[in-house]
Amino acid sequence: MCELLGMSANVPTDICFSFTGLMQRGGHTGPHRDGWGIAFYEDGGCRMFHDPRPSAQSEVAELIQRYSIKSCNVICHIRQATHGRVALENTHPFQRELWGRPWTFAHNGKLKGVKRLPLGHYRPIGTTDSEHAFCWLLSQLRDRHERPPARSTTRWRSIARLCRQLGEMGTFNMLLSDGQQLYAYCSTHLSWLTRRAPFGMAQLLDAEVQVDFQTVTTPDDVVTVIATQPLTSNETWNTISPGALVIFREGEATEIDTRQIRAIR
Amino acid sequence: MCELLGMSANVPTDICFSFTGLMQRGGHTGPHRDGWGIAFYEDGGCRMFHDPRPSAQSEVAELIQRYSIKSCNVICHIRQATHGRVALENTHPFQRELWGRPWTFAHNGKLKGVKRLPLGHYRPIGTTDSEHAFCWLLSQLRDRHERPPARSTTRWRSIARLCRQLGEMGTFNMLLSDGQQLYAYCSTHLSWLTRRAPFGMAQLLDAEVQVDFQTVTTPDDVVTVIATQPLTSNETWNTISPGALVIFREGEATEIDTRQIRAIR
Repeated sequence: MCELLGMSANVPTDICFSFTGLMQRGGHTGPHRDGWGIAFYEDGGCRMFHDPRPSAQSEVAELIQRYSIKSCNVICHIRQATHGRVALENTHPFQRELWGRPWTFAHNGKLKGVKRLPLGHYRPIGTTDSEHAFCWLLSQLRDRHERPPARSTTRWRSIARLCRQLGEMGTFNMLLSDGQQLYAYCSTHLSWLTRRAPFGMAQLLDAEVQVDFQTVTTPDDVVTVIATQPLTSNETWNTISPGALVIFREGEATEIDTRQIRAIR
Repeated sequence: MCELLGMSANVPTDICFSFTGLMQRGGHTGPHRDGWGIAFYEDGGCRMFHDPRPSAQSEVAELIQRYSIKSCNVICHIRQATHGRVALENTHPFQRELWGRPWTFAHNGKLKGVKRLPLGHYRPIGTTDSEHAFCWLLSQLRDRHERPPARSTTRWRSIARLCRQLGEMGTFNMLLSDGQQLYAYCSTHLSWLTRRAPFGMAQLLDAEVQVDFQTVTTPDDVVTVIATQPLTSNETWNTISPGALVIFREGEATEIDTRQIRAIR
């Protein structure tokens, strides 16, 4: 399987601390040796870094840890290949443009028969189940809404339905973002925590690293971190229930139980 | 204006030498301070690095120079903003998926009225003329060919016609690739040179750096470099004529005079 990491914040924030923890799981404290990738939204754009090499030994990962790119929305993924060979084109996150915005997607899990779902506008470049699911999801969204729906709840509901449909095909833990919202769907494992004033000390589980967030924040900062497994040992993480979609905007969470949503079929 | 750099090779090759020369022009020997980006094709995938900061002072650029990513197709761009503010979303190269392949595009020049060209499948994320031209070009290609044409000359001709149309709107020097071919259209300035056995010494124009290519190649290597302005002082560069499209595949060039192609209108 793979591990996911996301961040949603109300002020551009670096993800160096959480990233340092996660990168250890890429061939050091964890078995996720088959590449990694990260997407940072900055202004209206998004830049991605991908490396098909293990993150614990990656020079690009080292740069990210040092360089401290600040962003309000981040999606990161470290891969343990289950479907699709180890190659750059199979390295998450994947990206496509929809409604003039860059959408990025990362997935953990296995989906059975997903490649039989018909594609529309978007075609996969690599051979993973995950990229196929992403292309299907965006194709469906685009078919239903030629323009972005004016009400964000309409968009949320559409995404929730599509996630539930994918969730029925196997294990579907995913992070999806258009740079404004970050969507987290949980099928088996996904946790999150929000840091806000009064800030305190955090200690990584995977490395001897701790940070006193009070020294690097202002009182108005709201920063949420989402991860497959909790990354710190001394903070309380919220576990997302299977079948729930949590939408993060500027660090604040809204939860939708997708089982409560009317089926589309 | 901006500067372009491309590479087409028959064996994965690093672009460190040429990249080192070009990066100097991003705020050091040249005025192109408004960001830079590079796309490397590796296997069926493509990874990009973007930085809205001047390349001569960019930590990401430093990594690329040190890390020596090997690729058969590379597109690089350093920007001096003329249209669209300095921002990540306006930083070339741009990328979109077409026919299941990642297409990348970088442009030098100004196009008048290009934003009046109707868009189809692809929408710009940023505000540059260049991204609009790219989205239009790919939309047109997709409308004409639902699948990639079996004959590569059919594809070449379609691209040549679209380039000519854009060329009529102003200055359109561009590099475009799908990872198999690299297309170079010249409106005013674009040069290229092919290095093959017997390899010799090359001296950069913009930095005190020289390389003896004989020590880093095998006798079968064919490596072509394309640039807005020649990058070396002791080699003979070919100048592309205005209105010509040169298609590079595994380092070998085929030239099409787009003025000889039947108009589409």
